[in-house]
Amino acid sequence: MRPPNALYAQSGGVTAVINASACGVIEAARRHPDRIATVIAARNGILGVLSETLVDTSDYRTDQLIGMRNTPGGIFGSCRFDLDDEHDNPAQYQRIFDVLAAHRIGFLFYNGGNGSMHTARQLAESAQRRAYPLTVVGVPKTVDNDILETDCCPGYGSAIKYLATSMREAAIDLASMRSRRGRVFVLEVMGRNAGWLAAGCGLAADRHDAAPHVVLLPEVAFDEAKVLAAVKGCVERLGFCAIAVAEGIRGPDGRPLAQVATDSAGYVQLGGAGAVVAARISASLGYKVHHAIGDYLQRAARHLASATDDAQAHAVGVFAVEAALSGESGVCTAIRRTSSRPYCWHVDTVPLERVANLERTLPREFVREDGLHVSEAFRTWALPLISGECLPGFRDGLPRYWQPRLSEMPRRLPAYSC
Amino acid sequence: MRPPNALYAQSGGVTAVINASACGVIEAARRHPDRIATVIAARNGILGVLSETLVDTSDYRTDQLIGMRNTPGGIFGSCRFDLDDEHDNPAQYQRIFDVLAAHRIGFLFYNGGNGSMHTARQLAESAQRRAYPLTVVGVPKTVDNDILETDCCPGYGSAIKYLATSMREAAIDLASMRSRRGRVFVLEVMGRNAGWLAAGCGLAADRHDAAPHVVLLPEVAFDEAKVLAAVKGCVERLGFCAIAVAEGIRGPDGRPLAQVATDSAGYVQLGGAGAVVAARISASLGYKVHHAIGDYLQRAARHLASATDDAQAHAVGVFAVEAALSGESGVCTAIRRTSSRPYCWHVDTVPLERVANLERTLPREFVREDGLHVSEAFRTWALPLISGECLPGFRDGLPRYWQPRLSEMPRRLPAYSC
Repeated sequence: MRPPNALYAQSGGVTAVINASACGVIEAARRHPDRIATVIAARNGILGVLSETLVDTSDYRTDQLIGMRNTPGGIFGSCRFDLDDEHDNPAQYQRIFDVLAAHRIGFLFYNGGNGSMHTARQLAESAQRRAYPLTVVGVPKTVDNDILETDCCPGYGSAIKYLATSMREAAIDLASMRSRRGRVFVLEVMGRNAGWLAAGCGLAADRHDAAPHVVLLPEVAFDEAKVLAAVKGCVERLGFCAIAVAEGIRGPDGRPLAQVATDSAGYVQLGGAGAVVAARISASLGYKVHHAIGDYLQRAARHLASATDDAQAHAVGVFAVEAALSGESGVCTAIRRTSSRPYCWHVDTVPLERVANLERTLPREFVREDGLHVSEAFRTWALPLISGECLPGFRDGLPRYWQPRLSEMPRRLPAYSC
Repeated sequence: MRPPNALYAQSGGVTAVINASACGVIEAARRHPDRIATVIAARNGILGVLSETLVDTSDYRTDQLIGMRNTPGGIFGSCRFDLDDEHDNPAQYQRIFDVLAAHRIGFLFYNGGNGSMHTARQLAESAQRRAYPLTVVGVPKTVDNDILETDCCPGYGSAIKYLATSMREAAIDLASMRSRRGRVFVLEVMGRNAGWLAAGCGLAADRHDAAPHVVLLPEVAFDEAKVLAAVKGCVERLGFCAIAVAEGIRGPDGRPLAQVATDSAGYVQLGGAGAVVAARISASLGYKVHHAIGDYLQRAARHLASATDDAQAHAVGVFAVEAALSGESGVCTAIRRTSSRPYCWHVDTVPLERVANLERTLPREFVREDGLHVSEAFRTWALPLISGECLPGFRDGLPRYWQPRLSEMPRRLPAYSC
């Protein structure tokens, strides 16, 4: 009898190496043709399941999988979409399982962050209730590094390799110039509740007085007087000061310093924390302040991906298949560290309920005592994650990414409106 | 008799490859010990001459010169400082020539942009008037690419390789996501009067509907209705739109779009052109808009330098020495292109007066007919400039840059206040 198919989907904000996980899932599944017939990918995560917009990956040649692995963004598309509770919307779940059944899906590999792991959990539980034979394994990814129970999240290492490099380079530029007024550079990075990305900028500071000189984290209430004093001290010592600012920094009242907009779903778009910090420094200290905003660049910079991160992203995909085939379900793959020096790690699994919809912020021991930088413990923990370069191919001077026109499988069910 | 020394100085905004020019000057001078005793570098351009803050480069080993070449920013420091007219401030010039004489300087290599070439010219003319034997050769550099009489400016190729890569990567991320609302990404790049850097982003658009979809240039008056229509059309076709915005774009009245903007909550924001464009798109079309600001990152991204740019930056330094030794003075080195496909170029010289304080904006034939993108002619011209990768070394996952503590030469003259 033909074995069942596997479904793979990408969800949430994408990363520079999420496609390495896709690649890992596809490659590992191909090694077990007796257990998994083919890997079908959903377009735009669970939305692609609901709309039955599916892609058969069995045609991809090995060189195309390598091209996929070296391309940032979600090759199959991602989404930000929360399923309703099944109790409130049974039709939604019925539709999903109709699609899974129509395509003989027996394995679900859902690649995402905290929220996506909640989706995976909802589907695993629903399958159990309806006795649909579905093995569900989550595959972690997020530049935010805020998934619990894994030592780090694939996508994070590449993001901070890019951010720390950018910080180092911009600060060298800043240091080159000379002017009567002090000079300040502010780099705004992502991170609404967790300061992992801002902390990662701190890796550039490999010696006393190296940039960044100040790191502002959402976990530490923004104390304006204290920050201004630190900036002033740095400028008086060096002539300049480079600062990493998480977009989600909050004042002592717990409210974000800056927010741009709220969409109809109530999702607050943060942004502008860097501009606010820049404006306050300029107004209070009279320095010349430049500010940069990393935005998508920090999660898409595949040209500066970490080889370690790429390897881990691939491994959590491979291991998801192996775990599924060994009978595990309702779990998420996770990175376990056994040693920092030398850096040793392996992949394990963790129950989805210990991960879903939970958020891991920066622990206190990763923040320097004064709250204005990272600690040595953070450096020791984070440095291995940015180790190694793995460049994409280049053509005509630019990275050559694989952007295929995905051919969608014929639909077997009537249309459905999400 | 001991030959005279040469003075090398860096001036104006720095680039990812300006130190390759420094390297070129030092290496070429070392090949002629009978003509140039040593290369002395001024700290922070002409300010270092005025203050007699000088560095002897003769101690640098070959491997250190390579480290210098691979490091962004100005290794000797730069400045933004205009000399007065000699007529108004003869003491300033007297001081400069006192310092030059005290250090037996017979050659001046001044590495900078339009304004810096004016400084070089002022010094060449003053030397002539006072019959001080000084050979002056300018060495061009600027990410802005706005120096006249050279086919391109060293520093520009690396900046646009970085920007076009960033645009491509961010747009892949943008395309990965799916939402009910259209999605827009705005990348703000440098360029107050000239759109060369924004145009460079356009290189990422290597096929129909590839990002960026819109390029906004200072040379083309910002026509809001036209821009919004283009963005709307793109979003309706693709679901998203990526836009490159020069910081200096101007309205039909010729005034910059971005001075200061006020958001819906009444907060005054630091006005960036990208933020203004983003806000107008969001307000008029209701799309979800992200925006990034490149700032220093675009001129410091040595990790993604163009090998062609690095080679040209080095060559204009080498040739400056050769031109000086062959008797030329009061000139600036310049890149001459003899063919685009294959790309052939060599270095030549041009009189300083044809360069100093002049500005080269994007010619009309490099702009697409509708004013909202670059033309094919631009692509043909610009593509060779980003060709080839030349990575710095990496250590602990980050680029290893050479940041020596520069030991300054003992002063021979009394202090002077600039």
